[in-house]
Amino acid sequence: MSKIDYTQAGVDYSKIDPLKILAQQAAAATAGNLQRHGLTEVAASRGESAYVVDCGAFYLASITECLGTKALVADAMRLVTGKTYYDRIAQDTLAMAVNDLITVGATPVSVHAYWAAGGSDWFRDAQRAKDLVDGWRAACDACGVSWGGGETPALAGVVADGRIDLAASCVGLVRPKSRLTLGERLAPGDAIVILQSSGIHANGVSLARKLAERLPQGYATRLPSEAMFGEALLAPTVLYAPVTEALAAAGIVPHYCANITGHGWRKVMRHPAVLTYRFDRLPEVPEVLRFLQRETGSDDREAYGNLNMGAGFALFVAAGDAARTVAIAAAAGVPALVAGKVEAGPKQVVIEPLGLTFGADDLHVRA
Amino acid sequence: MSKIDYTQAGVDYSKIDPLKILAQQAAAATAGNLQRHGLTEVAASRGESAYVVDCGAFYLASITECLGTKALVADAMRLVTGKTYYDRIAQDTLAMAVNDLITVGATPVSVHAYWAAGGSDWFRDAQRAKDLVDGWRAACDACGVSWGGGETPALAGVVADGRIDLAASCVGLVRPKSRLTLGERLAPGDAIVILQSSGIHANGVSLARKLAERLPQGYATRLPSEAMFGEALLAPTVLYAPVTEALAAAGIVPHYCANITGHGWRKVMRHPAVLTYRFDRLPEVPEVLRFLQRETGSDDREAYGNLNMGAGFALFVAAGDAARTVAIAAAAGVPALVAGKVEAGPKQVVIEPLGLTFGADDLHVRA
Repeated sequence: MSKIDYTQAGVDYSKIDPLKILAQQAAAATAGNLQRHGLTEVAASRGESAYVVDCGAFYLASITECLGTKALVADAMRLVTGKTYYDRIAQDTLAMAVNDLITVGATPVSVHAYWAAGGSDWFRDAQRAKDLVDGWRAACDACGVSWGGGETPALAGVVADGRIDLAASCVGLVRPKSRLTLGERLAPGDAIVILQSSGIHANGVSLARKLAERLPQGYATRLPSEAMFGEALLAPTVLYAPVTEALAAAGIVPHYCANITGHGWRKVMRHPAVLTYRFDRLPEVPEVLRFLQRETGSDDREAYGNLNMGAGFALFVAAGDAARTVAIAAAAGVPALVAGKVEAGPKQVVIEPLGLTFGADDLHVRA
Repeated sequence: MSKIDYTQAGVDYSKIDPLKILAQQAAAATAGNLQRHGLTEVAASRGESAYVVDCGAFYLASITECLGTKALVADAMRLVTGKTYYDRIAQDTLAMAVNDLITVGATPVSVHAYWAAGGSDWFRDAQRAKDLVDGWRAACDACGVSWGGGETPALAGVVADGRIDLAASCVGLVRPKSRLTLGERLAPGDAIVILQSSGIHANGVSLARKLAERLPQGYATRLPSEAMFGEALLAPTVLYAPVTEALAAAGIVPHYCANITGHGWRKVMRHPAVLTYRFDRLPEVPEVLRFLQRETGSDDREAYGNLNMGAGFALFVAAGDAARTVAIAAAAGVPALVAGKVEAGPKQVVIEPLGLTFGADDLHVRA
């Protein structure tokens, strides 16, 4: 099978970035509005995964994130197995927001659901609606957040017919303020603890969809384990909030956190500091990602540069806290390992077991 | 021209509501999660326009709202005049969130933008992107909020090709806590101050689009004032935060607020109390709404029951504060009038100048 790359899969970051930069500059210019209310922003949070405002007694963190196109996989798999999978899709959507929010040290407090359908008919499917609601609620319970409300508009002509655009917004509090993790303490010698992913999570899905189109059996293709490709893709994103809350309860404040999403392992170096991130151990690669890499003809650079390859979330902690961090994560139900360390050196991610290095030029997630 | 009703225009609330009720029940069941963090929800905020959590020193309010289909009007009008109108569309989107948030007495603090396009190409149009960013920033400045970030995904296959799904989430603080306006103090004798709308705002747009399809000149149809129908529809939604903030600064705490959106004047009775809302004066009806009513063959019941007809926001204040409320709103740039009063009696909205009454059965915005 011929190679598939991201541009063919419909995601072209070169077309998005100019607007993103324009928006980031305009957004930064509005920070002064907080003065009217006696508040100040935490400027270092701009460009991070959640926005942080100093409210005196604590910090307020907020984020809005979307699922992306993963619901299209659920829609296709329903034709194969009859299941809706929207309980899993709900967890994915909530995870996109919550896993970003917790990177700054926030406790997620409340979420709003944004479910925009391509027409009123979408909501008429009772089983799918129930699965979406049940999955959303279960994910809220798992993260300890209150589901405050949401929007369920029918947007014929804006959202594609028969589809739904799913997003979540989340608000959290950083309490005590010493829990704020924007990376000021990130330093050489820190350990990098990788929290295991469950599969593709919600990034790299366009590539997977493209592959499904080319496979003779599509999503029904069997993996070596006999699992169906489409069903394996729909393993829900791990919710990492129980881990960060358990760490806080144990008195461990990470020096930095990175939610591994759209830029794969390049995301490890998202902090602005010039540091080298060296890995000598790798998490287990979920079968579906190994299959995706092989079938799309991607080399390790492409795979680790775009997919999580088993690393769902990176915690940068004091070396002395590393082993306990792994134990606490495991106790919270998330396998983890001390995979590498932070070193003085050029900005790069070095994955020694694969002989792979990503330099600063490989990452463009900031303005 | 034959009559157009809302079901023909693609919005069928009967298909949305079962999911909405299911979601509201599940959401309410997650409130207990806040106990893990030593927080409690303000239960009376469920079913209101923003969700409120008690954080001790103050209340935290949050909301996510979408624009709806108004961007389709901008897209169509661009073919007529060459202008993008996305600066106005940006204000509309922000207004949907901010005008809801302020109903509970919150000062809007930060917003996130959600701009989901039908493909990367959407973002390649530099003028449209610039207008969207500029309009968003200007609206943030007008409301005194900090634009904390956002999402600009390209969702081919989910969002319709060439379109964009726009939404906003907003976080606010209720400080001091005595500013909370969930309606406990709403009582017979209160005055109803109506803040003038600028036009259709972002509700009733499906109906307007349907009408444009039937008009020989479409959106280019001239209104009596010579304004183009499409351009008049694109008058941006009024931002009411400057009014509510000015009232707070003047020591006036409304007894209740209602953002007049999808259910027109029926929204006036959204508070759960059994009260009669009697109007003896009406705000000026924007020309575009008068035209829309006439051309769709809608009677006053349909027009006032679905469109704002000049009433963008309702403030329920102590009778003694009414005149000063009007003056403060005017000073903040928003025309207002004391249009009616709250009375003991059955739950209904009585619009005397039109001989029109909406009963409780006419409104179903709560579970």
